[in-house]
Parts: sequence; C-alpha cells; structure tokens
Amino acid sequence: MLIKWSLKGSKKLFECNIFNVLLKQYEKPENKGDFEANILDLPNWVNVIAFNQNDEILLIRQFRFGVDEIELEIPGGIIEPGEEPKDAGIRELKEETGYEIVSIEQIGKVSSNPSFMNNFCYTYLVKLGEKGSVSFDPGEIIESEFATLSDVKKLLAEGKITNAYCVLAFLWLALYDDGKIWNQS
Amino acid sequence: MLIKWSLKGSKKLFECNIFNVLLKQYEKPENKGDFEANILDLPNWVNVIAFNQNDEILLIRQFRFGVDEIELEIPGGIIEPGEEPKDAGIRELKEETGYEIVSIEQIGKVSSNPSFMNNFCYTYLVKLGEKGSVSFDPGEIIESEFATLSDVKKLLAEGKITNAYCVLAFLWLALYDDGKIWNQS
Repeated sequence: MLIKWSLKGSKKLFECNIFNVLLKQYEKPENKGDFEANILDLPNWVNVIAFNQNDEILLIRQFRFGVDEIELEIPGGIIEPGEEPKDAGIRELKEETGYEIVSIEQIGKVSSNPSFMNNFCYTYLVKLGEKGSVSFDPGEIIESEFATLSDVKKLLAEGKITNAYCVLAFLWLALYDDGKIWNQS
Repeated sequence: MLIKWSLKGSKKLFECNIFNVLLKQYEKPENKGDFEANILDLPNWVNVIAFNQNDEILLIRQFRFGVDEIELEIPGGIIEPGEEPKDAGIRELKEETGYEIVSIEQIGKVSSNPSFMNNFCYTYLVKLGEKGSVSFDPGEIIESEFATLSDVKKLLAEGKITNAYCVLAFLWLALYDDGKIWNQS
C-alpha cells in the first residue's frame, strides 16, 4: 500500500511573472531516505469549448513563445489570483474573442504535470451569445474562426491542434453526456 | 493573417535537474513593439496506453511531488537526451512495471503548454508481453494494476485520473481506428 511522502521543507529558488521554482525536501516512507524535488509553482489555467448556434466550435490562432509557432487552440488562459475558474473562462473567452456566453458548465479538470508542476487546468463547455469587442493582453495578437466537431476531430488526428490543454478538452467532450455530442459528428 | 514574432535574443536565467528558465526577447510584427517572455526549457515526455491479452489497461500509482498526492496514471516519463520517443516509452514501461512489449505504435503528440513551455509529450499504444522485474528511479516507488477501458472511462469521468498527459492519451485512443476500441466498451 502506497503512502504519501513527508514534506520536510520548501524554499523558493527562482521567481518570474508566470511561475516560481521551489526546492522541496521529502522523506521517503519506511526509512528509505530523503529526496529533493524541483517544483514549478504556477497559477491554474482554464479553457473553453464554445459552441455557436450552428453547433460550430470557436477556435483561435496566435503566436506562441514556448514553441515559436502559430498555434490553433480553444480560448483560455491563466486564472487570476482569487478568481473563480468559471469566471476566468468567461473573461478569457470575452478578452480573446469578444463573445459573451449563454451558458457554461465545467466538464473536466486535470493536473498539468503532477511530477513537478502544482497547477490544474479546468475545462468548460460553453454556448456562445453575442459578439462584442476583444481586449488582448500585451503578449497577444489573436484571430478567431469556427469549425465543426467533425473538422476538429480531423484537426486533432492530423496533429494541427497540439496544445495539450486543448487536446484533452476534447476528451472531456468525448466523455460528456455519454458521448452523445462526440458521436453525433 | 498572423505571422510569427521575431526572436531577437534569448538568455538562461535559471537551471536545475529537470528544466531551464529562459528569457526570450521578441519583436512584434508591424512595429507593434518588443515583448519579453519567460520560457520553460525542458525535455520531452512519453507515455503509453498498454493493453494486456485480456484487453485490460495497465495503470500505475505513485506519490507525485508536484501535487503532493498519490496519483493514478499510465506508465511514462522523461525522454533522455538522444533517445527516440518510442524507445523511451518501451524503457519507462519496463522500468516502472517490468513489462516487455509485443507491439508499439505512436497515436498522438502534444505540446505541453505552448504559451511558455517548449516540450512535447508522445503517446504510444502498446500490447504487453511478459512481465520481468522493475527498476525504479531514486524518486520513484510505483505500484501497478489493470483496469478495463470501461473502468478507465469511469475513473476519468470521476476525476480519479488527473494527470493531463494521461487524460489526453485517452483522447488519442478515442480517435484511434475511427473510435473502434473506444466505442467497444
């Protein structure tokens, strides 16, 4: 039977605008010794699968610094301190695409990489309302487009959508409502 | 039409055993100014959905430092420098569970978080062979178990499998072979 390791100490080694690096000291169970782990301490994320009234899904394109490529994704971003994940999803959708929502429902939550990251990503299913104006962050220039779920499945299979958070959002959609939406297309 | 931003410079701000932190200077297109981005430079990851001869899926449990919890996952880990992703999958499976493979096939690849991380995770579909002995890393104490795909769908829906890489591996399975394996259970 596995038991949790004992945390003996933690100190901050580095900080920047997105994340901190921590060094955590652990004691293994059953006197198996100590272990030090570098941990990335960072905010939670949110993304949304947003359908319009024609059952099309809202996708966005933007340049991404991590991979030096223009990426096709679903709307999303960082949850601000004290902000509810749902409110962050509504805010990011509005800022990045201009759209208001008619309804919103959480369909999934994951740990980014529990081996060394301490944050989570929440996925919401949204029905879109009216479109207003966008409000990009300083590091954002974003274009929006719509695709059918059938098109999205092809984009996933062809490796055209590569952001892990976006890919797994569609796993939550595949599981939602016993697969009714997923298997329609 | 979006175009890529110009990289003007990059320097290393921090390094540890798993990752480096870089500061990259970008110039936005159309003279819209400069932008500095903190980037996490880290190795690629691999994981495997491994079926035994009874069509059961191999799951592992281990304590995870990032979230301070015992996590239920599929086998996987870091791809070593110069190692092929497939070979890393075979190695991690063997080290963590003791199992050899009969066949292996890549079913997906994602970017971890293209907004600030530069690495990818590869997912393989494996048929298991014989079980040998395990060989854990210093930071690993791992237990193995089997579950049917139907059980895994329940575990996913109930939030019992939370590692993003593991969750999205099952999206690749849902898309594989026009959903034949996914829809059987």
